Amino acid sequence: MKVVLITGCSSGIGLRIAVMLAEDEKQRYHVIATMRDLKRKDNLVKAAGDLYGKTLFVAELDVCSDESVKQCINSIKDRHIDILSNNAGIGLVGPVESIPMDEMNNVFETNFYGSVRLIKEVMPDMKNRRAGRIIVISSVMGLQGVAFNEVYAASKFALEGFCEGLAAQLLSFNVTLSMLEPGPVHTEFELKMIQGMKEKEWPSVDPDTVNYFRNFYLPGAVDIFEILGQTPDHIAKRTMSVIEASNPHFHNLTNPLYSPILALKYADETGCLSVQAFYCMLFTLRPLMNVGMPVLKYLTFGFMRKWRISPN
Amino acid sequence: MKVVLITGCSSGIGLRIAVMLAEDEKQRYHVIATMRDLKRKDNLVKAAGDLYGKTLFVAELDVCSDESVKQCINSIKDRHIDILSNNAGIGLVGPVESIPMDEMNNVFETNFYGSVRLIKEVMPDMKNRRAGRIIVISSVMGLQGVAFNEVYAASKFALEGFCEGLAAQLLSFNVTLSMLEPGPVHTEFELKMIQGMKEKEWPSVDPDTVNYFRNFYLPGAVDIFEILGQTPDHIAKRTMSVIEASNPHFHNLTNPLYSPILALKYADETGCLSVQAFYCMLFTLRPLMNVGMPVLKYLTFGFMRKWRISPN
Repeated sequence: MKVVLITGCSSGIGLRIAVMLAEDEKQRYHVIATMRDLKRKDNLVKAAGDLYGKTLFVAELDVCSDESVKQCINSIKDRHIDILSNNAGIGLVGPVESIPMDEMNNVFETNFYGSVRLIKEVMPDMKNRRAGRIIVISSVMGLQGVAFNEVYAASKFALEGFCEGLAAQLLSFNVTLSMLEPGPVHTEFELKMIQGMKEKEWPSVDPDTVNYFRNFYLPGAVDIFEILGQTPDHIAKRTMSVIEASNPHFHNLTNPLYSPILALKYADETGCLSVQAFYCMLFTLRPLMNVGMPVLKYLTFGFMRKWRISPN
Repeated sequence: MKVVLITGCSSGIGLRIAVMLAEDEKQRYHVIATMRDLKRKDNLVKAAGDLYGKTLFVAELDVCSDESVKQCINSIKDRHIDILSNNAGIGLVGPVESIPMDEMNNVFETNFYGSVRLIKEVMPDMKNRRAGRIIVISSVMGLQGVAFNEVYAASKFALEGFCEGLAAQLLSFNVTLSMLEPGPVHTEFELKMIQGMKEKEWPSVDPDTVNYFRNFYLPGAVDIFEILGQTPDHIAKRTMSVIEASNPHFHNLTNPLYSPILALKYADETGCLSVQAFYCMLFTLRPLMNVGMPVLKYLTFGFMRKWRISPN
């Protein structure tokens, strides 16, 4: 059985990855599903059902603490981990002016340093054994920056930059490192965040920026979320296919509708095409998008539906 | 006269940008050249000559301190800055296993948070005035991760991700935000760093990784540095052209020889082509590069020479 360690398993994508691997028919995986606070394990334990204690085990791990990471890895037999899946992450949306430096730090602590800490702790053993697989849940915003998501995008870009160089190095040790880049994912957390943003006041931000954020960005984000959003199950399934691939890709965009956006970015070395396109999408094409979105909804409904159905 | 604030002016690129703008024949720029430690201003003052106190002024600014940034900006008349050039940055090379978390933090504090701090402090005034230009000295490693440069690349990727979203937002305020992406630059600092790396011991790293780093990566880096390295003057000149452009680009690669590398990355959405190419360059094609480099040196000498000559 392959030992899989997953971070951020109390809900959402991490929970689904853990349960899906534990449910493997051939029982190939011994899943160590970790979370910061064991008081929040109930949803996971419930979803695991009979498999809890058989193929799925829960452990405490705070990705923001060197000690907690070390303690958790040391508690594993021979420190042997075959597959590491870095999933723990937090979101942050809002005008840059309103975000204090320590709030930015928090996002980086979890999203960037959290993964780096785990990789630093687990990678040397994998290199020694000349075997191992590391999967990092990044985001499509790790490849394309988006207005009002500057800090979140920066933390995911940082992960991509860190891992891109490391992946080439690790190939010589037979260790693979893959990024998963989901777009919007339907979790309770994301819906709550957007709702919270609608109601929030922004005393430190100029009225024009607040107007753009509240009346241009947010409605657009809700539309995109509704139309392009995938389920945690979809992301978990994709993670599983990366784990099982003989030669996993480095980038793994889970949502094919983001490919054209990246193609636009990559087609123009000056970056102007991409920045202009996002500017237009946000500020000048908004009325057009109000008309276009229902049409897109109608056209893509059949196509998108399969993504929304849980694989189980 | 346009007020230009530049960070990291005690040496290298920052010093050259400051002096070049101060030397402008039409005297269009009032340059505030900042640095963390005013004791290190001698080289700058010497390079500025008669212009010191006329078009070039020196001020203390530690990009790692909220207070220092605030104090410096508040000391400027009406806090009015037309052009902000974020240049302060530090390097870090070496196997990930050998780098403690707080050393990573240091790199991010200067390279990422340093720029973010300045942008947060200066941007609201620019937005209010509906005018301004922000330039961030990133790196080609902000677009392409490189083995043994994981942390440095991550800090520059973070900058790129942060700024890409912000640039689109700022367009609606008539504020432009541009990245400069130099490759290797001939500064005393870089040469010293590579020399230091050759002699350093790596007790916490496995012998194979040390071997790869010392006998594959470092010699290759020295070659690339010698062949592709540009002068701080070249980067300063390019910065000036971004400042003077009516519609500056978002990305500005200073070294055209990196375009094919990025094209390789962007041509393959899975990232495999790029990771494989870097793996081959580092580990399997090294003997071939030993032969190829002198040929490349010979072939490109005439072409590269113009980059090495100071524009003054």
